[in-house]
Amino acid sequence: MRWIRFTAPGAAESWGIEEGGRIREVRGSPFDGHGPTGRTHALAEVRIEVPFVPRTFYAAGLNYVAHIREHGDPAAIPSKPDIGYRAVNALIAHDAPVVIPSDATKVQYEGELAVVIGRKARHLSEADALSCVLGYTIGNDVSERVWQRADRTLWRAKNTDTFKPMGPWIETDFDLEAARTTVRLNGAVTTEFATNDMLFGVRRFIAAMTRYLTLHPGDVVWMGTDGTSPDLKPGDVVEVEISGIGTLRSPFVAEAA
Amino acid sequence: MRWIRFTAPGAAESWGIEEGGRIREVRGSPFDGHGPTGRTHALAEVRIEVPFVPRTFYAAGLNYVAHIREHGDPAAIPSKPDIGYRAVNALIAHDAPVVIPSDATKVQYEGELAVVIGRKARHLSEADALSCVLGYTIGNDVSERVWQRADRTLWRAKNTDTFKPMGPWIETDFDLEAARTTVRLNGAVTTEFATNDMLFGVRRFIAAMTRYLTLHPGDVVWMGTDGTSPDLKPGDVVEVEISGIGTLRSPFVAEAA
Repeated sequence: MRWIRFTAPGAAESWGIEEGGRIREVRGSPFDGHGPTGRTHALAEVRIEVPFVPRTFYAAGLNYVAHIREHGDPAAIPSKPDIGYRAVNALIAHDAPVVIPSDATKVQYEGELAVVIGRKARHLSEADALSCVLGYTIGNDVSERVWQRADRTLWRAKNTDTFKPMGPWIETDFDLEAARTTVRLNGAVTTEFATNDMLFGVRRFIAAMTRYLTLHPGDVVWMGTDGTSPDLKPGDVVEVEISGIGTLRSPFVAEAA
Repeated sequence: MRWIRFTAPGAAESWGIEEGGRIREVRGSPFDGHGPTGRTHALAEVRIEVPFVPRTFYAAGLNYVAHIREHGDPAAIPSKPDIGYRAVNALIAHDAPVVIPSDATKVQYEGELAVVIGRKARHLSEADALSCVLGYTIGNDVSERVWQRADRTLWRAKNTDTFKPMGPWIETDFDLEAARTTVRLNGAVTTEFATNDMLFGVRRFIAAMTRYLTLHPGDVVWMGTDGTSPDLKPGDVVEVEISGIGTLRSPFVAEAA
Protein backbone atom coordinates (compact mmCIF):
# COMPACT_ATOMS: atom_id res chain seq x y z
CA MET A 1 0.00 0.00 0.00
CA ARG A 2 1.22 3.48 -0.85
CA TRP A 3 0.65 6.32 1.63
CA ILE A 4 0.93 9.71 -0.03
CA ARG A 5 0.82 13.24 1.41
CA PHE A 6 -0.53 15.66 -1.17
CA THR A 7 -2.29 18.93 -1.93
CA ALA A 8 -5.11 18.89 -4.48
CA PRO A 9 -5.91 22.13 -6.35
CA GLY A 10 -7.81 24.48 -4.05
CA ALA A 11 -7.75 22.05 -1.12
CA ALA A 12 -5.73 21.63 2.10
CA GLU A 13 -2.84 19.15 2.51
CA SER A 14 -4.11 15.65 3.09
CA TRP A 15 -3.12 12.01 3.38
CA GLY A 16 -4.27 9.47 0.84
CA ILE A 17 -3.71 5.96 -0.49
CA GLU A 18 -2.37 5.81 -4.05
CA GLU A 19 -3.10 2.96 -6.44
CA GLY A 20 -2.84 2.94 -10.22
CA GLY A 21 -2.60 6.70 -10.55
CA ARG A 22 -5.61 7.44 -8.32
CA ILE A 23 -5.51 8.69 -4.72
CA ARG A 24 -8.22 7.81 -2.22
CA GLU A 25 -8.15 10.70 0.27
CA VAL A 26 -8.32 9.89 4.01
CA ARG A 27 -8.86 11.91 7.17
CA GLY A 28 -6.36 11.25 9.96
CA SER A 29 -2.94 9.79 9.17
CA PRO A 30 -1.17 6.45 8.89
CA PHE A 31 0.35 7.16 12.33
CA ASP A 32 -2.79 8.05 14.30
CA GLY A 33 -5.62 6.16 12.60
CA HIS A 34 -7.57 7.14 9.51
CA GLY A 35 -10.80 6.75 7.56
CA PRO A 36 -11.93 7.47 3.98
CA THR A 37 -13.30 10.90 3.09
CA GLY A 38 -14.91 9.51 -0.07
CA ARG A 39 -12.93 11.96 -2.25
CA THR A 40 -10.51 10.73 -4.91
CA HIS A 41 -7.89 12.57 -6.97
CA ALA A 42 -5.74 11.87 -10.00
CA LEU A 43 -2.09 11.52 -8.93
CA ALA A 44 -1.10 13.62 -11.94
CA GLU A 45 -3.20 16.55 -10.73
CA VAL A 46 -1.96 16.91 -7.13
CA ARG A 47 1.23 18.36 -5.67
CA ILE A 48 3.18 15.70 -3.78
CA GLU A 49 4.24 16.96 -0.31
CA VAL A 50 6.98 15.82 2.09
CA PRO A 51 5.40 12.60 3.44
CA PHE A 52 5.78 13.76 7.06
CA VAL A 53 8.02 15.90 9.27
CA PRO A 54 9.87 13.32 11.37
CA ARG A 55 9.74 13.60 15.13
CA THR A 56 13.37 12.45 15.13
CA PHE A 57 15.35 12.26 11.88
CA TYR A 58 17.90 9.46 12.25
CA ALA A 59 20.57 8.70 9.65
CA ALA A 60 23.00 5.80 9.55
CA GLY A 61 25.84 7.69 7.86
CA LEU A 62 28.62 5.30 6.83
CA ASN A 63 26.79 2.05 6.08
CA TYR A 64 27.99 0.78 2.67
CA VAL A 65 31.59 -0.26 2.16
CA ALA A 66 32.32 1.35 -1.23
CA HIS A 67 31.01 4.69 0.02
CA ILE A 68 33.12 4.52 3.17
CA ARG A 69 36.27 3.73 1.14
CA GLU A 70 35.60 6.78 -1.03
CA HIS A 71 34.62 9.31 1.62
CA GLY A 72 36.00 8.16 4.95
CA ASP A 73 39.21 6.81 6.31
CA PRO A 74 39.28 3.37 4.59
CA ALA A 75 40.59 1.86 7.83
CA ALA A 76 37.67 3.35 9.76
CA ILE A 77 34.86 1.01 8.70
CA PRO A 78 32.45 1.18 11.66
CA SER A 79 32.51 -1.82 13.97
CA LYS A 80 28.98 -1.26 15.29
CA PRO A 81 25.77 0.57 14.30
CA ASP A 82 26.13 4.09 15.76
CA ILE A 83 23.15 6.08 14.47
CA GLY A 84 23.42 9.78 13.59
CA TYR A 85 20.96 12.61 12.95
CA ARG A 86 19.73 14.96 10.26
CA ALA A 87 17.49 18.04 10.70
CA VAL A 88 13.94 18.64 9.51
CA ASN A 89 14.52 22.26 8.37
CA ALA A 90 16.23 20.76 5.30
CA LEU A 91 13.35 18.54 4.15
CA ILE A 92 11.73 19.14 0.77
CA ALA A 93 9.24 17.16 -1.31
CA HIS A 94 9.54 15.21 -4.55
CA ASP A 95 10.14 17.62 -7.45
CA ALA A 96 10.98 20.56 -5.15
CA PRO A 97 14.28 22.32 -5.94
CA VAL A 98 17.49 21.80 -3.99
CA VAL A 99 19.01 25.28 -3.62
CA ILE A 100 22.81 25.32 -3.89
CA PRO A 101 24.17 28.15 -1.68
CA SER A 102 26.36 30.68 -3.49
CA ASP A 103 29.42 29.65 -1.41
CA ALA A 104 28.97 25.89 -1.90
CA THR A 105 31.51 24.34 -4.23
CA LYS A 106 31.15 20.55 -3.99
CA VAL A 107 27.53 19.40 -3.69
CA GLN A 108 26.78 15.69 -4.15
CA TYR A 109 23.82 13.32 -3.87
CA GLU A 110 23.38 10.27 -1.66
CA GLY A 111 20.44 8.04 -2.58
CA GLU A 112 19.10 6.30 0.53
CA LEU A 113 16.41 3.97 1.79
CA ALA A 114 14.30 5.68 4.50
CA VAL A 115 12.60 3.50 7.11
CA VAL A 116 9.39 5.03 8.50
CA ILE A 117 8.54 4.13 12.11
CA GLY A 118 4.84 3.47 12.71
CA ARG A 119 4.62 2.57 16.37
CA LYS A 120 6.33 3.25 19.69
CA ALA A 121 9.09 0.72 20.36
CA ARG A 122 11.76 0.00 22.95
CA HIS A 123 13.94 -3.10 23.51
CA LEU A 124 13.19 -4.82 20.20
CA SER A 125 15.23 -7.89 19.24
CA GLU A 126 16.55 -8.20 15.69
CA ALA A 127 13.83 -10.80 15.07
CA ASP A 128 11.09 -8.36 16.16
CA ALA A 129 12.71 -5.18 14.85
CA LEU A 130 10.52 -4.71 11.80
CA SER A 131 7.34 -4.82 13.91
CA CYS A 132 7.63 -1.05 14.49
CA VAL A 133 8.08 -0.21 10.79
CA LEU A 134 5.16 1.36 8.90
CA GLY A 135 6.88 1.37 5.52
CA TYR A 136 9.69 2.72 3.37
CA THR A 137 10.37 5.85 1.38
CA ILE A 138 13.39 7.40 -0.38
CA GLY A 139 15.82 10.10 0.76
CA ASN A 140 18.54 12.08 -0.97
CA ASP A 141 21.14 12.99 1.66
CA VAL A 142 22.54 15.97 -0.29
CA SER A 143 25.99 16.88 1.05
CA GLU A 144 28.53 19.65 0.60
CA ARG A 145 31.85 17.81 0.85
CA VAL A 146 34.12 20.79 1.62
CA TRP A 147 31.95 21.78 4.59
CA GLN A 148 31.65 18.12 5.61
CA ARG A 149 35.43 17.98 6.02
CA ALA A 150 35.93 21.51 7.40
CA ASP A 151 33.17 21.84 10.01
CA ARG A 152 33.09 20.31 13.47
CA THR A 153 29.57 18.94 12.84
CA LEU A 154 27.48 18.11 9.75
CA TRP A 155 25.14 21.06 10.30
CA ARG A 156 25.52 22.93 7.01
CA ALA A 157 27.19 20.15 4.98
CA LYS A 158 24.08 18.00 5.39
CA ASN A 159 21.32 20.23 6.82
CA THR A 160 21.33 23.42 4.79
CA ASP A 161 17.71 24.28 3.85
CA THR A 162 16.48 22.06 0.92
CA PHE A 163 19.35 19.53 1.29
CA LYS A 164 17.01 16.67 2.35
CA PRO A 165 14.55 15.62 -0.38
CA MET A 166 12.27 12.82 0.88
CA GLY A 167 9.46 10.95 -0.86
CA PRO A 168 7.56 10.57 -3.08
CA TRP A 169 5.42 8.33 -0.80
CA ILE A 170 5.58 5.58 1.82
CA GLU A 171 5.36 2.01 0.49
CA THR A 172 4.25 -0.53 3.11
CA ASP A 173 4.78 -3.65 0.94
CA PHE A 174 8.45 -3.71 0.10
CA ASP A 175 10.91 -6.53 -0.63
CA LEU A 176 14.18 -5.15 0.77
CA GLU A 177 16.16 -8.25 -0.26
CA ALA A 178 15.22 -7.76 -3.92
CA ALA A 179 15.50 -3.97 -4.06
CA ARG A 180 18.06 -2.02 -6.08
CA THR A 181 18.89 1.67 -5.69
CA THR A 182 19.57 3.51 -8.93
CA VAL A 183 20.59 7.16 -9.15
CA ARG A 184 20.27 9.03 -12.43
CA LEU A 185 21.82 12.42 -13.18
CA ASN A 186 20.05 14.20 -16.04
CA GLY A 187 18.61 10.86 -17.14
CA ALA A 188 21.84 8.82 -17.19
CA VAL A 189 22.55 6.19 -14.51
CA THR A 190 25.50 7.34 -12.37
CA THR A 191 25.19 5.07 -9.31
CA GLU A 192 23.58 1.68 -8.77
CA PHE A 193 23.70 -0.78 -5.87
CA ALA A 194 21.76 -3.49 -4.03
CA THR A 195 19.72 -1.53 -1.46
CA ASN A 196 20.23 -4.15 1.26
CA ASP A 197 24.01 -4.43 0.80
CA MET A 198 24.45 -2.60 4.09
CA LEU A 199 27.18 -2.96 6.65
CA PHE A 200 24.46 -3.02 9.34
CA GLY A 201 20.93 -3.78 8.18
CA VAL A 202 17.60 -2.30 9.23
CA ARG A 203 16.98 -4.99 11.88
CA ARG A 204 20.45 -4.57 13.37
CA PHE A 205 20.12 -0.77 13.64
CA ILE A 206 16.63 -0.87 15.18
CA ALA A 207 17.64 -3.49 17.74
CA ALA A 208 20.78 -1.54 18.71
CA MET A 209 18.97 1.80 18.90
CA THR A 210 16.05 0.56 20.98
CA ARG A 211 18.40 -0.81 23.63
CA TYR A 212 18.88 2.84 24.68
CA LEU A 213 16.09 4.88 23.11
CA THR A 214 12.39 4.80 22.35
CA LEU A 215 11.33 4.99 18.71
CA HIS A 216 8.10 6.91 18.11
CA PRO A 217 5.52 6.99 15.30
CA GLY A 218 6.78 9.48 12.73
CA ASP A 219 10.47 8.88 13.39
CA VAL A 220 12.50 8.06 10.30
CA VAL A 221 15.82 6.24 9.83
CA TRP A 222 17.81 6.92 6.65
CA MET A 223 20.06 3.93 5.98
CA GLY A 224 23.07 5.44 4.19
CA THR A 225 24.27 5.19 0.61
CA ASP A 226 26.76 3.32 -1.54
CA GLY A 227 29.13 4.50 -4.24
CA THR A 228 30.02 8.06 -5.16
CA SER A 229 28.40 11.07 -6.77
CA PRO A 230 29.64 13.54 -9.35
CA ASP A 231 29.64 17.19 -8.27
CA LEU A 232 26.26 18.76 -8.97
CA LYS A 233 25.54 22.15 -10.49
CA PRO A 234 22.48 24.34 -11.06
CA GLY A 235 20.30 22.87 -13.82
CA ASP A 236 21.03 19.25 -12.88
CA VAL A 237 18.17 16.87 -12.13
CA VAL A 238 18.80 13.92 -9.80
CA GLU A 239 16.47 10.93 -9.59
CA VAL A 240 16.83 8.34 -6.84
CA GLU A 241 14.88 5.19 -7.68
CA ILE A 242 14.45 2.27 -5.32
CA SER A 243 12.74 -0.64 -7.07
CA GLY A 244 9.49 -1.45 -5.29
CA ILE A 245 9.09 2.06 -3.87
CA GLY A 246 9.36 4.62 -6.68
CA THR A 247 11.49 7.54 -7.83
CA LEU A 248 12.39 10.73 -5.91
CA ARG A 249 13.25 13.52 -8.35
CA SER A 250 15.03 16.77 -7.42
CA PRO A 251 16.05 19.65 -9.69
CA PHE A 252 19.11 21.58 -8.46
CA VAL A 253 19.09 25.39 -8.70
CA ALA A 254 21.40 28.26 -7.72
CA GLU A 255 20.70 30.39 -4.67
CA ALA A 256 19.11 33.71 -5.69
CA ALA A 257 21.59 36.59 -5.52
CA MET B 1 6.83 36.42 31.83
CA ARG B 2 7.03 32.71 32.62
CA TRP B 3 5.47 30.21 30.22
CA ILE B 4 4.84 26.88 31.90
CA ARG B 5 3.54 23.57 30.51
CA PHE B 6 1.74 21.62 33.23
CA THR B 7 -0.85 19.03 34.16
CA ALA B 8 -3.33 19.87 36.91
CA PRO B 9 -4.93 17.00 38.85
CA GLY B 10 -7.61 15.35 36.72
CA ALA B 11 -7.03 17.70 33.77
CA ALA B 12 -5.24 17.52 30.42
CA GLU B 13 -1.79 19.03 29.77
CA SER B 14 -1.97 22.76 29.24
CA TRP B 15 0.03 25.94 28.83
CA GLY B 16 -0.11 28.68 31.42
CA ILE B 17 1.56 31.84 32.66
CA GLU B 18 3.16 31.54 36.11
CA GLU B 19 3.49 34.46 38.51
CA GLY B 20 4.04 34.34 42.27
CA GLY B 21 3.15 30.68 42.63
CA ARG B 22 -0.13 30.91 40.63
CA ILE B 23 -0.66 29.71 37.05
CA ARG B 24 -3.16 31.40 34.74
CA GLU B 25 -4.14 28.66 32.29
CA VAL B 26 -4.34 29.52 28.57
CA ARG B 27 -5.69 27.79 25.50
CA GLY B 28 -3.33 27.69 22.53
CA SER B 29 0.41 28.07 23.03
CA PRO B 30 3.13 30.73 23.12
CA PHE B 31 4.12 29.61 19.60
CA ASP B 32 0.71 29.71 17.89
CA GLY B 33 -1.28 32.36 19.76
CA HIS B 34 -3.22 31.98 23.00
CA GLY B 35 -6.00 33.30 25.19
CA PRO B 36 -7.03 32.91 28.84
CA THR B 37 -9.29 30.02 29.86
CA GLY B 38 -10.17 31.80 33.11
CA ARG B 39 -8.87 28.85 35.16
CA THR B 40 -6.00 29.26 37.64
CA HIS B 41 -3.91 26.71 39.51
CA ALA B 42 -1.42 26.71 42.37
CA LEU B 43 2.07 25.97 41.03
CA ALA B 44 2.61 23.63 43.99
CA GLU B 45 -0.34 21.47 42.97
CA VAL B 46 0.45 20.79 39.31
CA ARG B 47 2.94 18.48 37.61
CA ILE B 48 5.45 20.45 35.55
CA GLU B 49 5.82 18.98 32.03
CA VAL B 50 8.58 19.28 29.43
CA PRO B 51 7.93 22.83 28.16
CA PHE B 52 7.69 21.65 24.54
CA VAL B 53 9.00 18.97 22.20
CA PRO B 54 11.38 20.89 19.94
CA ARG B 55 10.89 20.70 16.21
CA THR B 56 14.68 20.70 15.91
CA PHE B 57 16.86 20.26 19.00
CA TYR B 58 20.11 22.17 18.40
CA ALA B 59 23.08 22.05 20.79
CA ALA B 60 26.26 24.10 20.68
CA GLY B 61 28.51 21.43 22.17
CA LEU B 62 31.95 22.85 22.94
CA ASN B 63 31.24 26.48 23.79
CA TYR B 64 33.03 27.29 27.08
CA VAL B 65 36.81 27.20 27.29
CA ALA B 66 37.28 25.39 30.62
CA HIS B 67 34.92 22.60 29.52
CA ILE B 68 36.75 22.18 26.21
CA ARG B 69 40.11 21.94 27.99
CA GLU B 70 38.74 19.20 30.23
CA HIS B 71 36.84 17.13 27.69
CA GLY B 72 38.24 17.84 24.26
CA ASP B 73 41.58 18.19 22.64
CA PRO B 74 42.84 21.41 24.29
CA ALA B 75 44.30 22.50 20.96
CA ALA B 76 40.92 22.02 19.28
CA ILE B 77 39.05 25.06 20.53
CA PRO B 78 36.46 25.67 17.79
CA SER B 79 37.24 28.56 15.44
CA LYS B 80 33.62 29.09 14.41
CA PRO B 81 30.10 28.28 15.66
CA ASP B 82 29.27 24.84 14.20
CA ILE B 83 25.94 23.84 15.74
CA GLY B 84 25.15 20.21 16.67
CA TYR B 85 22.02 18.25 17.52
CA ARG B 86 20.34 16.34 20.31
CA ALA B 87 17.25 14.09 20.08
CA VAL B 88 13.78 14.57 21.55
CA ASN B 89 13.33 10.96 22.68
CA ALA B 90 15.63 11.81 25.58
CA LEU B 91 13.65 14.80 26.93
CA ILE B 92 12.19 14.66 30.43
CA ALA B 93 10.58 17.27 32.66
CA HIS B 94 11.71 19.01 35.84
CA ASP B 95 11.76 16.49 38.73
CA ALA B 96 11.49 13.45 36.41
CA PRO B 97 14.17 10.79 36.95
CA VAL B 98 17.24 10.34 34.76
CA VAL B 99 17.59 6.56 34.33
CA ILE B 100 21.22 5.37 34.31
CA PRO B 101 21.49 2.30 32.03
CA SER B 102 22.96 -0.79 33.68
CA ASP B 103 26.00 -0.71 31.38
CA ALA B 104 26.73 3.01 31.85
CA THR B 105 29.81 3.70 33.98
CA LYS B 106 30.59 7.42 33.71
CA VAL B 107 27.47 9.61 33.69
CA GLN B 108 27.90 13.37 34.16
CA TYR B 109 25.78 16.52 34.09
CA GLU B 110 26.12 19.58 31.87
CA GLY B 111 24.06 22.59 32.99
CA GLU B 112 23.08 24.68 29.95
CA LEU B 113 21.13 27.73 28.88
CA ALA B 114 18.41 26.76 26.36
CA VAL B 115 17.26 29.38 23.86
CA VAL B 116 13.64 28.91 22.72
CA ILE B 117 12.84 30.07 19.18
CA GLY B 118 9.45 31.80 18.85
CA ARG B 119 9.23 32.76 15.20
CA LYS B 120 10.42 31.64 11.78
CA ALA B 121 13.75 33.24 10.87
CA ARG B 122 16.31 33.17 8.07
CA HIS B 123 19.28 35.47 7.31
CA LEU B 124 19.34 37.28 10.66
CA SER B 125 22.26 39.58 11.42
CA GLU B 126 23.88 39.45 14.86
CA ALA B 127 22.12 42.73 15.64
CA ASP B 128 18.71 41.25 14.81
CA ALA B 129 19.39 37.71 16.04
CA LEU B 130 17.38 37.90 19.24
CA SER B 131 14.24 38.98 17.37
CA CYS B 132 13.34 35.31 16.82
CA VAL B 133 13.80 34.31 20.49
CA LEU B 134 10.69 33.68 22.61
CA GLY B 135 12.57 33.10 25.85
CA TYR B 136 15.00 30.96 27.79
CA THR B 137 14.86 27.74 29.77
CA ILE B 138 17.40 25.34 31.29
CA GLY B 139 18.80 22.06 30.02
CA ASN B 140 20.92 19.32 31.57
CA ASP B 141 22.92 17.69 28.75
CA VAL B 142 23.49 14.42 30.64
CA SER B 143 26.40 12.53 29.05
CA GLU B 144 28.02 9.10 29.34
CA ARG B 145 31.70 9.87 28.81
CA VAL B 146 32.90 6.34 27.90
CA TRP B 147 30.31 6.10 25.12
CA GLN B 148 31.05 9.69 24.09
CA ARG B 149 34.65 8.68 23.39
CA ALA B 150 33.97 5.19 22.01
CA ASP B 151 31.04 5.72 19.62
CA ARG B 152 31.18 7.25 16.16
CA THR B 153 28.29 9.61 17.04
CA LEU B 154 26.79 10.99 20.27
CA TRP B 155 23.62 8.91 19.92
CA ARG B 156 23.67 6.97 23.21
CA ALA B 157 26.25 9.09 25.07
CA LYS B 158 23.92 12.08 24.87
CA ASN B 159 20.52 10.81 23.67
CA THR B 160 19.73 7.73 25.75
CA ASP B 161 16.09 8.00 26.97
CA THR B 162 15.82 10.45 29.95
CA PHE B 163 19.28 12.01 29.34
CA LYS B 164 17.86 15.44 28.42
CA PRO B 165 16.02 17.14 31.32
CA MET B 166 14.61 20.52 30.20
CA GLY B 167 12.62 23.12 32.13
CA PRO B 168 11.09 24.04 34.47
CA TRP B 169 9.58 26.83 32.34
CA ILE B 170 10.35 29.45 29.68
CA GLU B 171 11.31 32.90 30.97
CA THR B 172 10.81 35.70 28.43
CA ASP B 173 12.41 38.48 30.53
CA PHE B 174 15.99 37.42 31.08
CA ASP B 175 19.23 39.36 31.58
CA LEU B 176 21.82 37.10 29.95
CA GLU B 177 24.72 39.44 30.78
CA ALA B 178 23.95 39.22 34.51
CA ALA B 179 23.09 35.53 34.69
CA ARG B 180 25.09 32.86 36.53
CA THR B 181 24.75 29.10 36.11
CA THR B 182 25.09 27.10 39.32
CA VAL B 183 24.97 23.30 39.50
CA ARG B 184 24.36 21.59 42.82
CA LEU B 185 24.88 17.88 43.48
CA ASN B 186 22.89 16.69 46.49
CA GLY B 187 22.59 20.28 47.68
CA ALA B 188 26.28 21.26 47.43
CA VAL B 189 27.53 23.58 44.69
CA THR B 190 29.84 21.63 42.34
CA THR B 191 29.99 23.91 39.28
CA GLU B 192 29.41 27.64 38.84
CA PHE B 193 30.06 29.97 35.90
CA ALA B 194 28.90 33.14 34.18
CA THR B 195 26.17 31.95 31.80
CA ASN B 196 27.23 34.32 29.02
CA ASP B 197 30.96 33.43 29.20
CA MET B 198 30.57 31.58 25.91
CA LEU B 199 33.10 31.15 23.15
CA PHE B 200 30.31 32.06 20.67
CA GLY B 201 27.27 33.84 22.07
CA VAL B 202 23.59 33.44 21.29
CA ARG B 203 23.60 36.22 18.67
CA ARG B 204 26.65 34.78 16.93
CA PHE B 205 25.19 31.28 16.73
CA ILE B 206 21.78 32.42 15.46
CA ALA B 207 23.33 34.65 12.79
CA ALA B 208 25.66 31.86 11.61
CA MET B 209 22.92 29.22 11.60
CA THR B 210 20.36 31.31 9.73
CA ARG B 211 22.80 31.93 6.86
CA TYR B 212 22.08 28.32 5.84
CA LEU B 213 18.94 27.18 7.66
CA THR B 214 15.49 28.37 8.69
CA LEU B 215 14.73 28.48 12.40
CA HIS B 216 11.11 27.61 13.27
CA PRO B 217 8.85 28.29 16.27
CA GLY B 218 9.49 25.50 18.77
CA ASP B 219 13.12 24.96 17.82
CA VAL B 220 15.56 25.10 20.74
CA VAL B 221 19.29 25.83 20.93
CA TRP B 222 21.22 24.56 23.96
CA MET B 223 24.30 26.73 24.44
CA GLY B 224 26.84 24.35 26.00
CA THR B 225 28.33 24.19 29.48
CA ASP B 226 31.42 25.19 31.40
CA GLY B 227 33.51 23.31 33.93
CA THR B 228 33.36 19.64 34.82
CA SER B 229 31.04 17.26 36.59
CA PRO B 230 31.66 14.50 39.09
CA ASP B 231 30.49 11.03 38.06
CA LEU B 232 26.85 10.53 39.03
CA LYS B 233 25.27 7.51 40.66
CA PRO B 234 21.74 6.34 41.47
CA GLY B 235 20.34 8.35 44.37
CA ASP B 236 22.04 11.59 43.33
CA VAL B 237 19.98 14.74 42.78
CA VAL B 238 21.29 17.38 40.36
CA GLU B 239 19.97 20.94 40.30
CA VAL B 240 20.87 23.34 37.50
CA GLU B 241 20.03 26.92 38.46
CA ILE B 242 20.32 29.87 36.09
CA SER B 243 19.69 33.13 37.92
CA GLY B 244 16.72 34.91 36.41
CA ILE B 245 15.18 31.69 35.05
CA GLY B 246 14.87 29.14 37.86
CA THR B 247 16.11 25.69 38.87
CA LEU B 248 15.86 22.41 36.94
CA ARG B 249 16.02 19.46 39.33
CA SER B 250 16.67 15.84 38.31
CA PRO B 251 16.94 12.76 40.53
CA PHE B 252 19.17 10.01 39.09
CA VAL B 253 18.02 6.38 39.39
CA ALA B 254 19.27 2.97 38.26
CA GLU B 255 17.73 1.17 35.30
CA ALA B 256 15.30 -1.51 36.48
CA ALA B 257 16.76 -5.02 36.16
